[in-house]
Amino acid sequence: MITHTVTFRLAHDCGSAAERDFLDTAHRELSAIDGVHDFTINDQVGAKSDLTLQFSMVFADQAAYDAYNVHPAHVAFVSERWVPEVAEFQEYDYVLHKG
Amino acid sequence: MITHTVTFRLAHDCGSAAERDFLDTAHRELSAIDGVHDFTINDQVGAKSDLTLQFSMVFADQAAYDAYNVHPAHVAFVSERWVPEVAEFQEYDYVLHKG
Repeated sequence: MITHTVTFRLAHDCGSAAERDFLDTAHRELSAIDGVHDFTINDQVGAKSDLTLQFSMVFADQAAYDAYNVHPAHVAFVSERWVPEVAEFQEYDYVLHKG
Repeated sequence: MITHTVTFRLAHDCGSAAERDFLDTAHRELSAIDGVHDFTINDQVGAKSDLTLQFSMVFADQAAYDAYNVHPAHVAFVSERWVPEVAEFQEYDYVLHKG
């Protein structure tokens, strides 16, 4: 199980209609892709980063994650919405540490 | 509900005894603090960051988070282990976005 996360800041104002449209579209388009589980939108509220939002989603395995990355709906969202509307971002992918 | 996360890289080698001791101590000391829920240790496996580990924990509210921050067991862990053994880190705190 892999948790894919991206923490980011939009070029839009917080609470704006443009922000709402971006998040609504992301939720609708990305959570519908095969293999995406638990698609979640969070606010980043800590003072130690100026990033303000996060998407989090879970894949069963690397193959499902790879399929998402090249899925046309994901590729289209990245080029049409993500690239022009996101000011800054950082990706992290997590798997449970086996101690 | 607030999810507090810190993604980091240790000064120790991955898989070393020193890493294991750091993670075991963190788990034992921090997860025992009042108000800490779902304390989880993850590996950061994405190629887009050179951070390699993450702690994640959940607090019921800001008051519980504030109490953790000043708890003697947390303060001691930070000064005795975190500061000398962590090479780089980034904190993020998340709450569910109300869309």
